[in-house]
Amino acid sequence: MPDQGEFKRDTNYISDRITADGRDGWPVEAGRYRLVIARACPWANRASIVRRLLGLEEAISMGLCGPTHDERSWTFDLDPGGRDPVLGIERLQEAFFARYPDYPRGITVPSIVDVPSGQVVTNDFKQITVDFSLEWGAYHRDGAPELYPERLRDEIEDVAEKVFRDVNNGVYKAGFATSQEAYEEAYGALFSRLDWLSDRLAGQRYLVGDTITEADIRLFTTLVRFDAVYHGHFKCNRQKLSEMPVLWAYARDLFQTPGFGDTIDFGQIKEHYYVVHRNVNPTGIVPVGPELSGWLTPHGREELGGRPFGDGTPPGPPPEGERVPSLG
Amino acid sequence: MPDQGEFKRDTNYISDRITADGRDGWPVEAGRYRLVIARACPWANRASIVRRLLGLEEAISMGLCGPTHDERSWTFDLDPGGRDPVLGIERLQEAFFARYPDYPRGITVPSIVDVPSGQVVTNDFKQITVDFSLEWGAYHRDGAPELYPERLRDEIEDVAEKVFRDVNNGVYKAGFATSQEAYEEAYGALFSRLDWLSDRLAGQRYLVGDTITEADIRLFTTLVRFDAVYHGHFKCNRQKLSEMPVLWAYARDLFQTPGFGDTIDFGQIKEHYYVVHRNVNPTGIVPVGPELSGWLTPHGREELGGRPFGDGTPPGPPPEGERVPSLG
Repeated sequence: MPDQGEFKRDTNYISDRITADGRDGWPVEAGRYRLVIARACPWANRASIVRRLLGLEEAISMGLCGPTHDERSWTFDLDPGGRDPVLGIERLQEAFFARYPDYPRGITVPSIVDVPSGQVVTNDFKQITVDFSLEWGAYHRDGAPELYPERLRDEIEDVAEKVFRDVNNGVYKAGFATSQEAYEEAYGALFSRLDWLSDRLAGQRYLVGDTITEADIRLFTTLVRFDAVYHGHFKCNRQKLSEMPVLWAYARDLFQTPGFGDTIDFGQIKEHYYVVHRNVNPTGIVPVGPELSGWLTPHGREELGGRPFGDGTPPGPPPEGERVPSLG
Repeated sequence: MPDQGEFKRDTNYISDRITADGRDGWPVEAGRYRLVIARACPWANRASIVRRLLGLEEAISMGLCGPTHDERSWTFDLDPGGRDPVLGIERLQEAFFARYPDYPRGITVPSIVDVPSGQVVTNDFKQITVDFSLEWGAYHRDGAPELYPERLRDEIEDVAEKVFRDVNNGVYKAGFATSQEAYEEAYGALFSRLDWLSDRLAGQRYLVGDTITEADIRLFTTLVRFDAVYHGHFKCNRQKLSEMPVLWAYARDLFQTPGFGDTIDFGQIKEHYYVVHRNVNPTGIVPVGPELSGWLTPHGREELGGRPFGDGTPPGPPPEGERVPSLG
């Protein structure tokens, strides 16, 4: 098929899994692995939220890449001396090359690195959070929620597949389109799906079942970036999120839930997109807006019922050294 | 002073005036002159509004350039054969060169062209609307409002000067800045001024006095483009206009007043900015949004009193051939 100006995401990742039984050679083990994310990245954000909700902070440490990167990808420029203090590397690339010297694909976050060998184990963002739920049970905190319950798994994957295609990846298809036609197709699919989600969420507090699941986390990471980045930078501008009442209340509800908003750094999010994508924003100037204080306003979604953590409890505050700037 | 990434507007225009006494050689005369605008351009929009409000449509005909242009500037690409039917030219440039063969500055709208000679008389947008009010009185319609009353002139100019610097030109300073610092300075001045205008307009229907004046027209032409263009394309994104309640109601009030909204073509406005400014938007893709139907919603500003046209009356509908697409 000829190029129609459409953005295609490379969805080939390193597919090794860290499992309780260690069948891929990477057994679950506290202190052995380091999750590497960037606060900016929505795919990595899934992992930082799930790690928080499940209380895996002590079992799996976390390295933070800075918001901007060059063609050689993510760097540890936020760390003293520009090196991750645990892995001792300057570029995430080094962990990929330690595993595969000629690694040909994108150097992406989230990645999980085996600390003793310095090798990346996996960057398969979709599997990483599922395995946090299903394989790392021995290290979950007391009161950790069930984010991927077996009885809801088909429905979660069904909803999440639609959300991935039209929303998570849909905003990129709109923003990276190089033809008017490809852009308009992505824009149409995005807002149709957001309308569908609004209808679904008008009468129920969470996307699937009556508790927070993987489905909510996957939608949240795009919604939280919507007004700050996708609305303007990616031309997803039928409305702002804050002009879509159901989704805006739903997103605020999650934002104000421990484990969600405390993983969000709007400054890094904006800097990443506006500085890195010179093909979209040639000057690299980062907008001052939008006004963000609305994220902290009452959302009223408690009235819909639901039990955020099911039979569990909310996580405590994030560890020192993993705090994000407050909006206040 | 070294370049600090700041956008500087060339404010030198051809300063000849068309006057009742003809002292510059260009006497007021029905049918002799052609106003050339583009629906896209906010500076030209002032002239199209004032011409409508004063009922000068029959005395001064109007030519319409298309929304996009190349480095040789505005063209009559909307007209059959790509030529203005009255002037017979393809490019507005030709009227400037007819007057000054080596005209070195920008070819801008609004311009007024002397039809018999094909020469541009003036492109001084600020003077053009004032002269429509003060010099063309003999051709005003019955019930034409006083847009530039002598007793309010100082106040109109005082307000309009602030609006020009921080708002009309301020959005361009934000959007065309090439340094973060210059952008942030323009952004700060813009939103401070919008806050000041909100305060001023909270208790009074119009900017100066209790009727529509030049001051309102000059502010309106920027506000009407705000959400469609300046919010995203020029990074003026603290809020949308539709999120600033007083200014949004004020702008809708004017939009719904005959002579204002009936000069607005949002499609041409968006196409102009997003296609022409490749330095800001390299792909030339034009956003589908924002949703525009809000412009037609009730504004409630009648409660503030005010007499839109003073002792006069609203204009009738625009002439055939000058109708813009409706929002409905």
